Formats: sequence, C-alpha cells, structure tokens
Amino acid sequence: MGIVLGANQYGKAESRVVRVHRDTARHEIRDLTVSTALRGDFTDAHVTGDQSHVLPTDTQKNTAFAFAKKYGVSSPEEYAVVLGRRLLDATPAATGVRVRVEEHPWDRVTIGDREHDHTFVRRGGEVRTVELDLTDDAMTLVSGLTDLVVLKSTGSEFKGFLRDEYTTLEDADDRILATSLTARWRHAVGSADEVAGVDWDGQHRTARALLLEAFAETYSHALQETLFAMGRLLLERVPTIAEVSFAAPNKHHFLVDLEPFGLDNPGEVFIAADRPYGLIEATVTREGDG
Amino acid sequence: MGIVLGANQYGKAESRVVRVHRDTARHEIRDLTVSTALRGDFTDAHVTGDQSHVLPTDTQKNTAFAFAKKYGVSSPEEYAVVLGRRLLDATPAATGVRVRVEEHPWDRVTIGDREHDHTFVRRGGEVRTVELDLTDDAMTLVSGLTDLVVLKSTGSEFKGFLRDEYTTLEDADDRILATSLTARWRHAVGSADEVAGVDWDGQHRTARALLLEAFAETYSHALQETLFAMGRLLLERVPTIAEVSFAAPNKHHFLVDLEPFGLDNPGEVFIAADRPYGLIEATVTREGDG
Amino acid sequence: MGIVLGANQYGKAESRVVRVHRDTARHEIRDLTVSTALRGDFTDAHVTGDQSHVLPTDTQKNTAFAFAKKYGVSSPEEYAVVLGRRLLDATPAATGVRVRVEEHPWDRVTIGDREHDHTFVRRGGEVRTVELDLTDDAMTLVSGLTDLVVLKSTGSEFKGFLRDEYTTLEDADDRILATSLTARWRHAVGSADEVAGVDWDGQHRTARALLLEAFAETYSHALQETLFAMGRLLLERVPTIAEVSFAAPNKHHFLVDLEPFGLDNPGEVFIAADRPYGLIEATVTREGDG
Amino acid sequence: MGIVLGANQYGKAESRVVRVHRDTARHEIRDLTVSTALRGDFTDAHVTGDQSHVLPTDTQKNTAFAFAKKYGVSSPEEYAVVLGRRLLDATPAATGVRVRVEEHPWDRVTIGDREHDHTFVRRGGEVRTVELDLTDDAMTLVSGLTDLVVLKSTGSEFKGFLRDEYTTLEDADDRILATSLTARWRHAVGSADEVAGVDWDGQHRTARALLLEAFAETYSHALQETLFAMGRLLLERVPTIAEVSFAAPNKHHFLVDLEPFGLDNPGEVFIAADRPYGLIEATVTREGDG
Repeated sequence: MGIVLGANQYGKAESRVVRVHRDTARHEIRDLTVSTALRGDFTDAHVTGDQSHVLPTDTQKNTAFAFAKKYGVSSPEEYAVVLGRRLLDATPAATGVRVRVEEHPWDRVTIGDREHDHTFVRRGGEVRTVELDLTDDAMTLVSGLTDLVVLKSTGSEFKGFLRDEYTTLEDADDRILATSLTARWRHAVGSADEVAGVDWDGQHRTARALLLEAFAETYSHALQETLFAMGRLLLERVPTIAEVSFAAPNKHHFLVDLEPFGLDNPGEVFIAADRPYGLIEATVTREGDG
Repeated sequence: MGIVLGANQYGKAESRVVRVHRDTARHEIRDLTVSTALRGDFTDAHVTGDQSHVLPTDTQKNTAFAFAKKYGVSSPEEYAVVLGRRLLDATPAATGVRVRVEEHPWDRVTIGDREHDHTFVRRGGEVRTVELDLTDDAMTLVSGLTDLVVLKSTGSEFKGFLRDEYTTLEDADDRILATSLTARWRHAVGSADEVAGVDWDGQHRTARALLLEAFAETYSHALQETLFAMGRLLLERVPTIAEVSFAAPNKHHFLVDLEPFGLDNPGEVFIAADRPYGLIEATVTREGDG
Repeated sequence: MGIVLGANQYGKAESRVVRVHRDTARHEIRDLTVSTALRGDFTDAHVTGDQSHVLPTDTQKNTAFAFAKKYGVSSPEEYAVVLGRRLLDATPAATGVRVRVEEHPWDRVTIGDREHDHTFVRRGGEVRTVELDLTDDAMTLVSGLTDLVVLKSTGSEFKGFLRDEYTTLEDADDRILATSLTARWRHAVGSADEVAGVDWDGQHRTARALLLEAFAETYSHALQETLFAMGRLLLERVPTIAEVSFAAPNKHHFLVDLEPFGLDNPGEVFIAADRPYGLIEATVTREGDG
Repeated sequence: MGIVLGANQYGKAESRVVRVHRDTARHEIRDLTVSTALRGDFTDAHVTGDQSHVLPTDTQKNTAFAFAKKYGVSSPEEYAVVLGRRLLDATPAATGVRVRVEEHPWDRVTIGDREHDHTFVRRGGEVRTVELDLTDDAMTLVSGLTDLVVLKSTGSEFKGFLRDEYTTLEDADDRILATSLTARWRHAVGSADEVAGVDWDGQHRTARALLLEAFAETYSHALQETLFAMGRLLLERVPTIAEVSFAAPNKHHFLVDLEPFGLDNPGEVFIAADRPYGLIEATVTREGDG
C-alpha cells in the first residue's frame, strides 16, 4: 500500500497591502491584509521536488501589490475576485484559488466639524473580511467581519437549561451578554461578472447595522437565540445574501460577590473573564439552501 | 559585604473591573483594567518569609471591585485616587502606592438615529490610561492614551539627515507617516482634593482632539517634530497639564517598487511593515518644570 | 422561503486544567487547555430560546475538571475520549461532540544531575494537541503538535519554479528553511476501547522524533517536498497512523545585502521576516485511504 | 513661560538579526532581536524639523546587520557593546546609547544520539536578554532572561498575612507556586575592555541554573521570599554580578472545588488563571551598592 499526497494548497499569507487613492486632495485609504492559496495538481513539487508548476508565493505577493495599483481597490470583494482570477489563470496546474482579504478600517480625522483630507485614525478592533473560493466552474464569495465586540448590560437571561450531576450553574435572570463577533455572509453570486459594480461598501455598512440592531433589540434567552435573530434579520433584509455564519465567544462577565464587604451588587460590578469562554457557532440559512 | 533587599513593590495586576451604572434605564458602562502596587518596608516578607505586614494582592483586587461599587467610577482618575488612598491607608508598612487604570472605551449602539439604552460596541484599539503614584507627601497623576493609531498619507518628509558609511536611506519628499501613539500627560495637581469633581472625561476628549489636530495640521519633517508639535499644543491649550510624554513607533509604510511590472507608483501602493520599526520617545515640558 | 438553522455547535473553550499526580513524592504534572463542543438538534435553543436540551458550557467545564480528578490524565488522548463520551451521554439532543486538548509540556528541573521531585520548567513554544470527534457510530482521533519551530541553515534550495510577468524571485541555491510546524496525525482507531492503554506519550515522542529526523535529513527542493518526506516517514514507521496533515508557514529569512558596506554575505546574516509568509498545507495519506 | 523639549531618545526597535556561523560544516546560529536608541542634543529635530544631527533609525538597523557580519556574534553581550560604541561614535550629537538584545535560543536537533550539523529546533518560551547603556563616561551592562516559566507543585505556602475588611483570602498551607520569571543581573564592569573575551554564554548558563536551583530548593512562604533567595544565591556564587532584579507574575493556580461532585481535591486539580495576577518586583543587591 503506497503513501500518497492528499489535499494540499500553498500560498502567501498576510501581505500588508496599503492602497492610497490620491486622485484628488481628499485621499482615500484601503488597508488590507491579503492571503492567497492555490490548490491543484502539485504532486511533483511534493514528491520529486520539481517546482516547475509552482507559481512562487513571492509572485502571488507581487501580484497582490501590482493589482492594488493596476485595478485599485474599490472594494475588498472586487479586489479579491480580480486577484483570484489572475492567480488561477497564471498557474495552469491550479484548479482552485482562495483569497482572503482583511480590511482594517480607518476613519477620517475631524478637526472641529471639518474632515481632514489626508489624516486618518484607525477605527480599531473590528476587521472587515472577504473570503473567495474560485475555480473555473464555481465561485463562493463570503463577506464578513470579525472582532466586533458588543455588550448588553441587561435584557439577557439564561435559565431552564439541562442539568446533570456536574451542573452547578444557577439560573440567571439578568446578566451581561457580551461577545466578540465573527460573522460571515455568503453572497448569492455565481460569477465574477456579478461582483463588479456592486456597492459592497454600502452593503457592508447595512449588514453591520442590521447585526447591531438585532443584537440590541432581541431580548436574549441565550446567545444562540441572539445569533439566530441576527442571521434571520440579515437574510430578511438583504435578499442577495444566501447564508450567514457566526462564531461568537460568550465573553463571561461574572457578578462579583460583594456581600463579604457589606455591599449588595444588583448587576453593577462584574469581573470580565478571559478564559474559559463559551463558544457558540451557528449558521442561519434559507430553507432549501446550504 | 552582605546581600540586601533593594527597591521592591508588589501588587495585583490587570483586574478586569466592569462597572455598570444603571440608576436609570440608560445604562453607563466603565470597563477597566486595574493594577495596583505597594512599596515600602517589606524586608521581612522577602528575607524571613514573615507576611504579617503584607496586604495580599487578593485583598488589593477585592478592594478594586468593592470600591467600584461603593464609590462608582465617575472617571478613572478619581477612581484611581480613591483606590490608591485606601490601599496606602490599609497597609501601615507601605510608603507608596501605584495605581494604573486602563479604560476600554465603548460606544453606544445606534439604531437609525436612536441611541440604545443598554447596548454597546467596543471602540477598539485605543485605550485610555491613568497612572497614579501616591505617598503621604506627594501625588503624581498622569492621564493618557495608548494604541491610538494615526496615519497621514501625505504632508510628511524625511531628509537632510546625518549620513555615515552605513546609511543607505534616501531622502523622502512625500511619505506616509503612521504611528501607534502612546501619550501621557501629567497634571499639575498636588493632592486628592484637587482631583475630585474635575471633568476628567471632558478633558480627555479635549486632549485627544488636540493631539489629533496637531498630528493632522503639522507638516512633518520627522516624527520627532510632529510629537513636539502635539505636546506643545496640549500644553498651550490646557494650562493644568504640566508635561506631556510620547512613545511613538514609526510604523513604516514602504513604497512598493512596481517598475518590474511596468507600473509607476507615485505614492499609491505601500507595504506596511511590522518590524523593525522606528521608536521615538520625547517629553515636552514647560520651561523651569520637569 | 423560510429561514432556518443550519450547522451549529456550542461548548466551552480553553478551560485551563492542571492535573498534579502526587501519589508519591515525585509529582507528575499535566497542563491542559481543554475545549469541548456539542452538536445535534438544538433548534429550540436558537429559534424559540428554550434551553431545556442544552447542557450549559459551564457544566462542560465542570466535567472537564471533575474528570481530570476522577480518571486522572494518563494521556491527553485517553482523557479526551473519556470526557467526550461523558458529554455525549449527558446530552440526549447531542449527536456529536468535539474535544480539543492542548498539552503544554513541562520538564523537570535538574540540579546538577538530580531531577527535582516537584519543580518544573515549561518547555515553551511547542504544544501537543489532541482532537477528538465522537458520535454514537464513529470516532476520529487525531494527535499532533503545533508551534514546533525548526530551521535548517543549509541543505535547502528553491529553483526551477514557474515564472510569469509578476515573478521577480531569483533561484536560490542555498537558503535558510524555517517553519513553525503544525502537524496532525490521525489514528486508525475506531472505538474508545482501542484508545485505552495505548502508550500515547511514547508514540508522541516517536512521532516528534521522526518529524525532526525527516526535516533534518531531507535535502529540500521546497518546503512542500520536506513536508511530504516528513509525512511519509511517519506513515512508514508507525503503522497505526492513517494520515498526516501539515500546516507550515515558510518563515522567510532573507539574506541581507551588505555590499553597500563593502561586506560580502555568503549565507551568514539574515533578516527574519514576520509577514507575509508562505503557507504550505498538505496531507500525506495511505493509498486507498482518506 | 516657554514650552521646551525634555528627555528624549530615538532608535530602531526589534530588528530581527539572524547570524549563522558556518566556518565549518557544524553551523552555529544566533537569533537576535536588536533595539537601539540614541539620546542627546536633538532639539533641532524636534523644534525646527532640522534632521542634520540625526543618524536615521534605518542606519542604526543597517549597522546592526553589518556588525553581525563584521564582528560576528560571539555573545549578545559583546555584540551589544560593539554596536553601541559604534552608534555613539557615529552620532556627534548623541550623549548616550541604549542597546537591547533578545536572544531566542535554538537547540541542535538530535537524531538518535547524533547532533545534526545544521538543523535546529527553537527552545521556545524563554528569551535571553542583554541591556546596555553607554555614554562616553559610563557603561551599564545587564544580562538576564524573560519568560522562564517555572512551577512548584508543593513546598509553597502563604499565610499569616495582614488582614483588613476586604480580605477574604484564607491561609494556604500547600499551594502551587508558578511564575513567568523576568530576571536581570547587572555586571560589575565599567568599560568595553572588560566585556571582551568573557565567557558570557557560560555565565548565562550558570546564572540560569542557580535561579532554577534556588526556586526549587527554597521552601516558599511567599513569592517574595523565593525571589530574594534566588537573587541571594546568584550574588553569592557569581562575584562579578553586582545586583539582581526580578519581575515575577504570580501565576495563580486555584484549587478547583470538586465537592459538589462528591470528589475531594487534595492538591490535584487546579484551574490556571490568566488575569488578574500578582506581580512581585524586587531587587537584591550588595550592601553599600546600588
């Protein structure tokens, strides 16, 4: 019984591509971390060491920078598709390519009411994401965000859960609910043509606002329920989104027992715990899909 | 020649204190990381192992949580002073206490134009800081911020510098200037009484706005010059600030050479480098002070 | 067209379980980070908020600690299986469970030639991993390691690769090859019974030694070839391993151009780059398997 | 009252310098992170933007790489002194220079009993440090290590401490003591001449072994006492060390309450906590010194 190569891919991860659009005095900036990976028939590279079918990861990186200049970055979604198409075309042995783009958002500095033309402050924390999987026959495009840290100081309970002999948790009527949200929404687009010209920035703002709205407005019986409500709202309001996935750590905030100090603590002082944390993962989809 | 104990301090670092003010339906949240340290005559604890003069770090932590309830957190500055005073008083062997508070800012979630009462989104990145050093005779109170990441896409040069045989850097007429700013401003206050009732939140907003304004409006011959301009503006506008200190990594954005690909690159595509980075540290002070 | 729940799982991530075996004066320590996740029919929890089928993540955590006492930790593999089995049994709505265990290795402190009974120093960096997926019908058990940072200062080339108009990389005859290895090997075991009593610690040492041997002894035409050689050796020597997977960042070490300073640099001075990095992922398997 | 520049310094931080010594087939590797900073009269650079006295941080970086070639890296201590001397000489406006070197240790891969000539595995975690402060008149040289994580599973108590109304901690007769040690030892050397030719690698091994020995052999009434014992042993055994400083987080391992599950827990199962942590800082010195 022989030993053979199974699934494999290779690419350049985390190229830090910063594109300044400076056609007018009012600059725009797109700050991206770009990762690409090719898969296909690369058996020789692994088994015999022959690299003749391998487009170097260094070239993948060069292409990421060159295309940021050549085509600009009107949105990370469009940039990902153009870049992925190119890498697939340039590598005959490749049958598929993945492109992951993270965008680090910057806000324009304001002085009084005036927005500055070329000075920016990084918004921090939250990152916008795009994941593309492209073959000659199919395209999957997923937009999203990660590290969106949200918290409700009331309007959250957790009770009536299953108990066994290792259960010590008590019902909570009113607790802090907090998470660092990763959300990913897959678009109902099937080809590169459908990607060009869409207002992806606008759609991202809409999606983010809907996620926040559902998080805020849903009385929460559990983080699971809140996630489902967020996904449902997104699917209801944006018909071109096919599916929404979440990974949400339950960032526990434990009520501190202040009774030993003669103080009551009606939901006022909490300790924010690092680890362990609950981790809730869920996909919300349209019936008949996914 | 004997072996003796030199300088020493001990305390509890990074207690994650979250205080919700919920007197009305519109909650307020203060999210703090609190570190305290006591110094003084703790020779016995080190040399003989006798702990009778040592207030445990666990007690320091308890006090941090209890005081968040008892006195609330109207500002991290006031909280630091009350907490520091208590720890010093509770520990006869202590001659001094340091309190460091980091505040992680949260914004209220808005749905349309409406601000939500009890749902918050973390602003991310930037952290507000307070450092207190308190003895029976003296108090040093320093406010600040860290991880304020700012960038100018033009209006920055670096040229005319000293050259030696290891210098390969060329003059830059127009470059990206970016830093992740740590700024600390020392207040001209001498006692706890002068701390209570000051609008520290408002002053912090003012200081942050002035730092951003100076960063944006200063044509930069070097990051050093920009820092000095920022410090000068802060001292000019806020008379109760005695001194400003900066630590500012020069987050290099290198222009990518696209010539091999037949593309010119007039300040449009950059690679953001992680390491190494320039690191500029400077203090700006009032003459006769410092 | 309705909106429905898709794939989902929930659990407690990163419980830091430290187990001391102290039956004799010579203590043993197992330092684990444990994550568990249940999947199954949890639709009510998401859609209606009814938690009656949900075993809380807090209970999962309690079980992780209680089982570390009750059954000890003779190996992370056996511990994972016992813990996973329990969580699945305790949760009727669950159809599957995942357990991930990371073990942080400690070495015994030696004083002269004597090993200390109860003092340990953390080996650092490298982490041992176990991943279990268990249902009533099937079990997948994967052992591995992550963050094993290895480097060859010669015996590595990269040349003869595919070139396009964005390729500037030159052939390298002699370069540094370095990676921070993640390797995962799947065991040919089908049930919990086959897991008990195996010398998993010994097998892990063997696997690690074989990976290092193949890395060291393979003249490398590319990181891909090196990974394949490592997987092949593991499969050849350990018949109970069914498949090996790798994720290996190519941690670039660029030769520094010292010519401007009148110095040649025949493979002596390198700059270790953080980002971007190549990322090579490959699976090596037995023919007819996987 | 004018606004003036106070203390300031500037430099290049975290250059990742990897030096391979390959004079024979048996290679040696020194893997360094190098930071340098100059201070002096740089008022013009800050106030008027005139950079003519400023040796660029880019040049400092170039020098770090060039000197790794030119002089090799027989030890980080000698490398730091040669590099610091050069930067001070090359910058007339500078009155002082700081050099910080972190060395990331690598072990030679062994295959069976044979050490491989050019394949290395990173030891992980622990980092060796050197800090130099050099002026024309004075030199301070401090060696050390950081992230040395050590643990005792018994032989540690904490009791008889000071109590106040916020104290809830109970006496502990037998607890885990663990820390991630930062230790720094200052050498009694006054000039560059005294640095050359010393067996710094050997001394580092000795110092590390003594620290581990004292940690292991001291019955601990508190982490403070353990640190003092470690410092004392180092000073007693190595006469050329003038002073030892420690920063040691008390990495709490809390005994898990398993009583609700009908299990006792005599020092067997612990939860390792991330934050908060105790932080103990102490200096041990020779009488009449420091």
